Amino acid sequence: MSASKSTAATGAALPRPPAARGDIDPFIVMDVMRAANAREASGAPVVHMEVGQPGTSAPRAVIEAAKRALDQDRLGYTEALGLPELRERIAGHYREVYGVSVSPERIMVTTGSSAGFVLAFLAVLDPGGRIALPSPGYPCYRHILSALGGEAATIETDDATRWMPVPEHIEALAQQGELQGLLLASPANPTGTMLVGDALADLVAACQTRDLWFISDEIYHGLDYTEPAQTALAFSDAAIVINSFSKYFSMTGWRIGWMVVPDGLVRTVERLAQNLYISPPTLSQRAAIAAFDARDDLEAIKAVYAANRELLLEALPKAGLTEILPADGAFYLYADVTRFTNDSAAFAQRMLNETGVAATPGVDFDADRGSRYIRFSYAGRTEDMAEATRRLTGWLK
Amino acid sequence: MSASKSTAATGAALPRPPAARGDIDPFIVMDVMRAANAREASGAPVVHMEVGQPGTSAPRAVIEAAKRALDQDRLGYTEALGLPELRERIAGHYREVYGVSVSPERIMVTTGSSAGFVLAFLAVLDPGGRIALPSPGYPCYRHILSALGGEAATIETDDATRWMPVPEHIEALAQQGELQGLLLASPANPTGTMLVGDALADLVAACQTRDLWFISDEIYHGLDYTEPAQTALAFSDAAIVINSFSKYFSMTGWRIGWMVVPDGLVRTVERLAQNLYISPPTLSQRAAIAAFDARDDLEAIKAVYAANRELLLEALPKAGLTEILPADGAFYLYADVTRFTNDSAAFAQRMLNETGVAATPGVDFDADRGSRYIRFSYAGRTEDMAEATRRLTGWLK
Repeated sequence: MSASKSTAATGAALPRPPAARGDIDPFIVMDVMRAANAREASGAPVVHMEVGQPGTSAPRAVIEAAKRALDQDRLGYTEALGLPELRERIAGHYREVYGVSVSPERIMVTTGSSAGFVLAFLAVLDPGGRIALPSPGYPCYRHILSALGGEAATIETDDATRWMPVPEHIEALAQQGELQGLLLASPANPTGTMLVGDALADLVAACQTRDLWFISDEIYHGLDYTEPAQTALAFSDAAIVINSFSKYFSMTGWRIGWMVVPDGLVRTVERLAQNLYISPPTLSQRAAIAAFDARDDLEAIKAVYAANRELLLEALPKAGLTEILPADGAFYLYADVTRFTNDSAAFAQRMLNETGVAATPGVDFDADRGSRYIRFSYAGRTEDMAEATRRLTGWLK
Repeated sequence: MSASKSTAATGAALPRPPAARGDIDPFIVMDVMRAANAREASGAPVVHMEVGQPGTSAPRAVIEAAKRALDQDRLGYTEALGLPELRERIAGHYREVYGVSVSPERIMVTTGSSAGFVLAFLAVLDPGGRIALPSPGYPCYRHILSALGGEAATIETDDATRWMPVPEHIEALAQQGELQGLLLASPANPTGTMLVGDALADLVAACQTRDLWFISDEIYHGLDYTEPAQTALAFSDAAIVINSFSKYFSMTGWRIGWMVVPDGLVRTVERLAQNLYISPPTLSQRAAIAAFDARDDLEAIKAVYAANRELLLEALPKAGLTEILPADGAFYLYADVTRFTNDSAAFAQRMLNETGVAATPGVDFDADRGSRYIRFSYAGRTEDMAEATRRLTGWLK
């Protein structure tokens, strides 16, 4: 056996070590979910506030559309960019919700927003390319970027700019070195915080001035509680928008989302999608067409989130979690737990063990300061949120 | 507007040019499919022999399982490696079909084999890493590799080694420069040709001797007409196997497949999967569990392919396509059309326009020699194959 061989604790020797670029961090929330599921399987009750997904299934109309497709459709591959009917329907969504006109040719259906990030990075960023990412932020941005050889230029946001990047951040980063773009979510994960007023327009303009890609992750659109989220497409046809049916439309496990890209990038993304994905799941595409007609059901689900948010914003501060970031949208609360710990991972683990409340340590979202934060997802049932606050109230004291 | 901006014919200026690495070739078969669909939509009949997918839907048991899951399951995310029940069932498949014992911990469910390739390349290959790929071969191997910064070391196979690589090819490539592994499909796409006798064992051994990754694309397993395909796992626990429910199990649009990796690579691939995919489509996972109980339906579908194969191997040579590669498995015939053209893309386009038979030019599969080959997929109905041979017989003369 040559010296270059790596050997696992058990099992076959690897012919050579795994790739260095494959050595990315886990998406910790998935590991937390596994621990919570294991606890649940052992018979102990768990209140799931760890995973960013609705507690509800897809709306009835979506499920019925899926059943019809199962009866009527062979469910073969679709075109790589998705079913024309769905792309048309998404274009209609932009007209109806934002009053923005987007040609269906610029809309491509993707295998969840996850595929959107991979496609966007491969389409606009060469190895070594540098892209601005706000922190705290969705960890997979950083990890996907790392696996694909890109470099994250971190913007540490804080209270001074309401936990969002501002044009001055972009200026500062651009002066430190070549920058290719900015990727941003509003509402954001893990904070739920949104760009308000002219903040989005200002950022888009700042990127345009500097010839930077503006990649707008709009996956939490529809879930806003103070003012409606704006789409970057209202301010620029050159923006790359990534969205999904997972959150507002309550279809996480269906793995279906979409991108909007500028005309000049369509064929690049199409070629990448043909090769890396073939096509998005066909049944999910057929079903997603019906999602836009389920507005009443979806608004009812959103009303539950709104009630959960009210309940938690009332109860958690009383329980001792007084520092919660502006919770404008999505279904997250991001709480400073400095009073209790400087190791949020151990804290979350103890909380799960001792109270059965699963939440995600901030280290997933902010490498430096995340050890002092916990993310709670409130996409579950209101009674579960109430139960969680009861358990936490005793435990935190 | 700065000089660095690219402008599309219409639409917004791009802030900067797309990434060079995103400039990969299209998966031409997807473009051919679009042309064929457009012709069909205009009312002209098309015999689809271009796309490598079954003409059938998933088996009845799969569709019923999907409907049950729609009624009973919230269809949220699963663990990144997939539902434990499905991973167990796949392990059972290895016992039943190959008599090989594989721990479910080494099995990971993927979003089609497409995800398997992306995950495998990122897990074992750093940028600049070089991997041996037989040509003719599945074009997406090459294109994904290129997008991910890897380098293809092409093995041009021919009649001398029955259109498959042999250990001598590996030796030769390794002497030309650092090599990390070999990726191979048997049965192969586009040829349908299989490794026979001891050929797979010999190749696995050659890779082991040289500490190379052996990546075995077994997506066409189950579709063999002369002798059963062997799994690389029978010869090495260090092999990486990629498989899918798309072909034998007739579930293309469901986007569901699996990988088997050595123990020491599981956590690497899991982390990549968590970040790049979250989890494979849940409904497809639930449904795929039932696929293993649909053996009778699947064998009936395979019997149609076998009949189609017989029919075409009889009729096409009479029609003038006398040079067809060994058609051991899958549902492809790869025919030398040198007698008719040295531009297979134009030939396929003319064939579609003049006969309504859609097939894929070899340029998709073999950059150098593909201009003299056409791939026919015979995964459709036997009456369509008969109709295609009638049309082609007249046209080729």
